[in-house]
Amino acid sequence: MKFKVVMGVLGTLLWLLGLLMLIPLFVSMYYSESPQTFAIAFTITMVAGTIFAFRIEPAKEDWDLKEGFMIVAFGWLAAAIFGAIPFVLEGMTPINAFFESMSGFTTTGATVMVDIESHSRGLLFWRSMTQWLGGMGIIMLFIAILPKLGIAGRQMFRAEVPGPQEDKLRPRIRETAKILWMVYVAISVVECVALYLAGLNLYDAITHTFTTMACGGFSPYADSIAAFNSPVVEGIICFFMFLAGANFALHYRMFYVDKGSLLKDDEFKFYTLIIAIATLSLTLLLFKDHVYDLGTSFRYSVFQVLSILTTTGYATVDFNQWADSGRMLLFIVMFFGGCAGSTGGGIKIVRILLLLRYANRELFKAVHPKAVRIIRFNGKAVSDDVMHSIVSFVIIYFILFFISSGLLTMMGMDVFSSLSASIATLGNIGPAFNLFGPMANYNLLPFMGKLLLVLNMWIGRLEVFTVMVMLTSAFWKK
Amino acid sequence: MKFKVVMGVLGTLLWLLGLLMLIPLFVSMYYSESPQTFAIAFTITMVAGTIFAFRIEPAKEDWDLKEGFMIVAFGWLAAAIFGAIPFVLEGMTPINAFFESMSGFTTTGATVMVDIESHSRGLLFWRSMTQWLGGMGIIMLFIAILPKLGIAGRQMFRAEVPGPQEDKLRPRIRETAKILWMVYVAISVVECVALYLAGLNLYDAITHTFTTMACGGFSPYADSIAAFNSPVVEGIICFFMFLAGANFALHYRMFYVDKGSLLKDDEFKFYTLIIAIATLSLTLLLFKDHVYDLGTSFRYSVFQVLSILTTTGYATVDFNQWADSGRMLLFIVMFFGGCAGSTGGGIKIVRILLLLRYANRELFKAVHPKAVRIIRFNGKAVSDDVMHSIVSFVIIYFILFFISSGLLTMMGMDVFSSLSASIATLGNIGPAFNLFGPMANYNLLPFMGKLLLVLNMWIGRLEVFTVMVMLTSAFWKK
Ligand SMILES: [K+]
Ligand SMILES: [K+]
Repeated sequence: MKFKVVMGVLGTLLWLLGLLMLIPLFVSMYYSESPQTFAIAFTITMVAGTIFAFRIEPAKEDWDLKEGFMIVAFGWLAAAIFGAIPFVLEGMTPINAFFESMSGFTTTGATVMVDIESHSRGLLFWRSMTQWLGGMGIIMLFIAILPKLGIAGRQMFRAEVPGPQEDKLRPRIRETAKILWMVYVAISVVECVALYLAGLNLYDAITHTFTTMACGGFSPYADSIAAFNSPVVEGIICFFMFLAGANFALHYRMFYVDKGSLLKDDEFKFYTLIIAIATLSLTLLLFKDHVYDLGTSFRYSVFQVLSILTTTGYATVDFNQWADSGRMLLFIVMFFGGCAGSTGGGIKIVRILLLLRYANRELFKAVHPKAVRIIRFNGKAVSDDVMHSIVSFVIIYFILFFISSGLLTMMGMDVFSSLSASIATLGNIGPAFNLFGPMANYNLLPFMGKLLLVLNMWIGRLEVFTVMVMLTSAFWKK
Repeated sequence: MKFKVVMGVLGTLLWLLGLLMLIPLFVSMYYSESPQTFAIAFTITMVAGTIFAFRIEPAKEDWDLKEGFMIVAFGWLAAAIFGAIPFVLEGMTPINAFFESMSGFTTTGATVMVDIESHSRGLLFWRSMTQWLGGMGIIMLFIAILPKLGIAGRQMFRAEVPGPQEDKLRPRIRETAKILWMVYVAISVVECVALYLAGLNLYDAITHTFTTMACGGFSPYADSIAAFNSPVVEGIICFFMFLAGANFALHYRMFYVDKGSLLKDDEFKFYTLIIAIATLSLTLLLFKDHVYDLGTSFRYSVFQVLSILTTTGYATVDFNQWADSGRMLLFIVMFFGGCAGSTGGGIKIVRILLLLRYANRELFKAVHPKAVRIIRFNGKAVSDDVMHSIVSFVIIYFILFFISSGLLTMMGMDVFSSLSASIATLGNIGPAFNLFGPMANYNLLPFMGKLLLVLNMWIGRLEVFTVMVMLTSAFWKK
């Protein structure tokens, strides 16, 4: 293991992070808040980056897979740790700050803040901004901005980007990363303008754009999107959650290559189908079990389904108060997640779709044992390697889900709180049920419980393998 | 589809079932109860069998896979329906009787009886006996007893026997079925004697042997095994649950081929390991969260872990009253199940083991992408076909689990009741949590809820594929 190389790249990454902290510094100054928080955080991060990068090795092409995994995994860990400094400086305990920061960068949106509105405008801006950075990916940003990383860049890209297969928009990974970040910025600008025109002030428009486009879900308001109580704002956010939960490479293709790219994509079709079915079902359940009229049932359903399926985690109603049929539906939706190449988390639609095709093939083969049937995606045969990685992903995902749930009950949480909090953090969704509903927070957890969920968020955002390989003996053998 | 062939075999199966009803008839007479119940049930079943078999076709070798699946699936359905007649004759509603009978044959052990002890000795004997018949398998009994079925027999054997791979004890499937049934009978006799020597009367010894050896879990007493309050009885039952949850082919080999066959088997080792880890963990949790001393914690733990893991479903304590840490542990154990070739249900240990090895291979390949690594079981490479069937099994299993859970919440059940009742019936375990604890029953469910769980038990006992293939269009196409 070339630790010096790893340290060097992490140092550069910290410089980038430090520079980004200047933005909330300006926000603080604009609102006449003390610039001290972000000035100190900036200084510490830059100094740490310099110490890390002090002995950087020039031969980047020399990297092995292992260094790539380490850089991505520890890059995210470092971002969460240094990103937590402003929270500590505003009086949060170190574990709470770490939780909030990891929840930000991983776009989970689970919070330990008891009184969100009591925090400074600058800090809440940073909190939303960490999600936006984490949404398209800090490593991807790094690849897009910094000089060529060659093969190492591609491997790091794969270790961070959501989904089983990358979409090679360009032969060079740096170009691809640049394009994806630009599409992300462009759509963000459009959402921000739309929200501003819908009546939000610039601060609210920017912070909510950050957390919509990242499928993040943080809001500077405890009541989340319910705070605005506006159908227009909800409609805009629904639309952009829908976009953010779909594949950004396809958004690019739609504009520059082929207008029909989205509609031709198996995953996007299945994503839309799931949203339609879940929304319809939930509408009927809410109408049947609650006092809402049909229109209100639909309004709540479409927003909550989009929010949970895309793993954003906003709420326009305390869905934790619903009857168990509605809560169960949302709980099940938590296992789906966004599309590959989106900013959403979870298992991802393409994996679910391919697993369904896999199981369907086996049912077919039970009746026709000698028939050869190929699993296809967008008309092309899916390779065995891809299927192996999908199946293994889901196996490990469920193992982690059960272990995490078991550990939470040992800390005194009830069964459904534990199950839902585990999937809500592994899937980077945020809100869960019972103790951890959308209008509640995770502050009541003991230290170890917070640490466990931080681990879930980290593992979940990096698509399981990036972190889990470091637990194998093969990783550490020469 | 050769419906006449299917009908013919089902008719023969009903004759066998009818004849077996003579046994509870004698029990009723011994206890001076009215022989009417079983006399009528016997008559109806024999007459129905005759009508079904009236136009039996002689060319059995002519069967296709589809006929085999239909015979097995509808054979079990027919057994559950005709086996329900005695329950109806003793005053249960048709749906309750069907539920109880299906729960019996599938060795689930979930009950809708509100006051178990109020029923006749004969009926409770039949109730336990259905489990014993279903444990080793009614189709397997059929294959063992009736004239040669040739290739069709092998396929039917595969469609019923638990686990992804059959153990060919003999080249001829009929011989294999005979051996397995004989081993089953032999171990049952030993348990019965042991229980009798431990102080149980013959009736209790036989009925509990029936339901231990089948991993069934029915008891003529509402308090289940807690009714005896005897450490010796518990110890005996633990030992035989442990045997019944292991592979009967290995039991045979141990006696006649190789004394070390069990200890050399990967699945048996993993089965033992899981029991050890779960028992130890549960002991500590119970000791920590409850008023039990360490000895009592262990006594409760080992029994409940064995009961749930082997999918027997007995209880010596109302584990539904425990803290959520203990309940969650048992809930997670519900997803494991017995060994392949055992009488236990669930996903099965061998599948879990091979999925772990599958995921582990992928983690290895993430670091060494070009390395070739083979998944092995007992030293031999596992074929792709077997892995495909295992993965598909688990995919379908979880889909059914989530659908069933969702439907139960729509009928007003709470989340954990729904989740646990779904896995408890799909896995043929029996007792669940919250509304459906081991000292409660399933009677409060609405009609549709009972029907849903009957479906779960049926699908679960036949290892998912046998029933699910009939839902595909490929099955019904010419
Ligand atoms: K989120
Ligand atoms: K059972």
